[in-house]
Amino acid sequence: MSPPGYTDVQAAARRLDGIAHRTPVITSRTLDAQLGMSVFFKCENLQRVGAFKFRGAYNAVAQLTAVERQRGLIAYSSGNHAQAVALAARLFECDATIVMPANAPRVKRAATEGYGARVVAYDSAVESREQVADRLMAEREYTLVPPFDHPHIVAGQGTSALELLQETPALDALLVPCGGGGLLSGCALAAHGAQSGCRVIGVEPQGADDAVRSFRSGVLQRIEAPDTIADGVRTPSLGELPFALIREHVHDMCTVSEEAIGTAVALAFLRLKMVIEPSGALGLAALLSGELRGYRRVGVLVSGGNVDQEVFCRLIAAVNLR
Amino acid sequence: MSPPGYTDVQAAARRLDGIAHRTPVITSRTLDAQLGMSVFFKCENLQRVGAFKFRGAYNAVAQLTAVERQRGLIAYSSGNHAQAVALAARLFECDATIVMPANAPRVKRAATEGYGARVVAYDSAVESREQVADRLMAEREYTLVPPFDHPHIVAGQGTSALELLQETPALDALLVPCGGGGLLSGCALAAHGAQSGCRVIGVEPQGADDAVRSFRSGVLQRIEAPDTIADGVRTPSLGELPFALIREHVHDMCTVSEEAIGTAVALAFLRLKMVIEPSGALGLAALLSGELRGYRRVGVLVSGGNVDQEVFCRLIAAVNLR
Repeated sequence: MSPPGYTDVQAAARRLDGIAHRTPVITSRTLDAQLGMSVFFKCENLQRVGAFKFRGAYNAVAQLTAVERQRGLIAYSSGNHAQAVALAARLFECDATIVMPANAPRVKRAATEGYGARVVAYDSAVESREQVADRLMAEREYTLVPPFDHPHIVAGQGTSALELLQETPALDALLVPCGGGGLLSGCALAAHGAQSGCRVIGVEPQGADDAVRSFRSGVLQRIEAPDTIADGVRTPSLGELPFALIREHVHDMCTVSEEAIGTAVALAFLRLKMVIEPSGALGLAALLSGELRGYRRVGVLVSGGNVDQEVFCRLIAAVNLR
Repeated sequence: MSPPGYTDVQAAARRLDGIAHRTPVITSRTLDAQLGMSVFFKCENLQRVGAFKFRGAYNAVAQLTAVERQRGLIAYSSGNHAQAVALAARLFECDATIVMPANAPRVKRAATEGYGARVVAYDSAVESREQVADRLMAEREYTLVPPFDHPHIVAGQGTSALELLQETPALDALLVPCGGGGLLSGCALAAHGAQSGCRVIGVEPQGADDAVRSFRSGVLQRIEAPDTIADGVRTPSLGELPFALIREHVHDMCTVSEEAIGTAVALAFLRLKMVIEPSGALGLAALLSGELRGYRRVGVLVSGGNVDQEVFCRLIAAVNLR
């Protein structure tokens, strides 16, 4: 399959029209004054399943054959991709089996089951999710919906940035969280086609900076046990396809501290009145850390809002913002 | 001053254009499936100052004379009106003094001071806010910006419903929180003019049901110490102007329990990824309580999102939604 381009993002947008939410773009003048720039938050926490992942999963499942869908779908995911595949399966009336680490956020597991999928939990200390998925696929001929390393997934995720760029002219930069790189590479394709003057910058936690190191070295790097509160980007490594696209279209990468992530979640609570999961707060965390000083108009991709109540309250209690 | 009508709401909307946020309307298919209807949340928690109150305050201050503004503004408020007047004063470059109960949510007091207003705290067990404001006005000739009992305030608040009704056709009903009645009466004017088939229903906490009793008896009722977590609607009584408009244009009123309010705040966290203050959750609480069963398309005015982190976390921890 050839790598996706801007036209694939546009085609995905047509496929998702009326199916995915066209999520709002939120601004806060108080936050703008504090940061000294105009910031536009693309709220994928308000997407169906509470995260951008629905875009890619639906775009991929829509392009499977009827036979592939009838075999039943399988996916492995720490959470949001799980819910996304579960919902896409329900919309296409096929079965879904989701392989999920036993320590995944409860809110994500509960939601996945709520969409009618079967969840198979595994101990990530004992085996990898790929191993579990392979074992299940050996038992039955499931159709795998990969979390990021696939052109249809990448193109689908890029539709989030496409919407933002269509309604927010002349952005200087766009900040995008980076785990496996599906969202970042898709957004980079969208920006390249829709607003070529907009610099696309990927953001990772310091404790999970494999993509930053891959980007800088030009060689795919891997971190076996990424250490971060941002569970959505605990991916050990970029996918090969996202990595190639990121090298071609992403302008820069940066990292943020765990403290900055927590402050960003709390600031979103206080100023944006938004529930943002730690991974979704990476872009705001980068702004708070002084990255992008000097920029005037910045887009922030808020990737999701699925966070356990305990984690959320711990984060917003830990910072004194006043 | 004559009572406001639909044209005053339209005029207020023009005055607020480009000044207030046109807040998004949010939907959740999961919540729709649970409730058996289509629900449209008008997110005034995403308004400037985090609440609809900015609309009325700005609309009122904009219609003061330059001399009235130069005297300095004064307002009494448990919180959101305070922030609203503080911000309106800053936009018109005049001073503002806000009389606020000493037990007002800290987040609201901090924000009011953040907008540059002087806050005068008082002990609500010792004197009323009107007494404190009168004392201050005797000292200096401030211009009072009343919280709800004024045609310009009412017309301004109504612009929130006007926006919702303009972009969401054929609503069967609109649920609006009710404290002093400025928002409810303004929204009723908007609905009367924009979608006369939409029933407007006011919602109050059971422990602060003065407006429901006023509505049913036709005589203005008063509750000296309203007992509810919903601090934004702890007003002892409707204003006279709002009461007259509510009698004329509101179709029904209902009450909700404290438990339902807490569940609504938690459900907004879990399903809408929204931070909603207890008063802002009254409409959703009414839906969860089975009010409006049989309706197909319902608008919910989410009035604000200014809630202390401790209160918010207590509410979302108290309910098990899964």
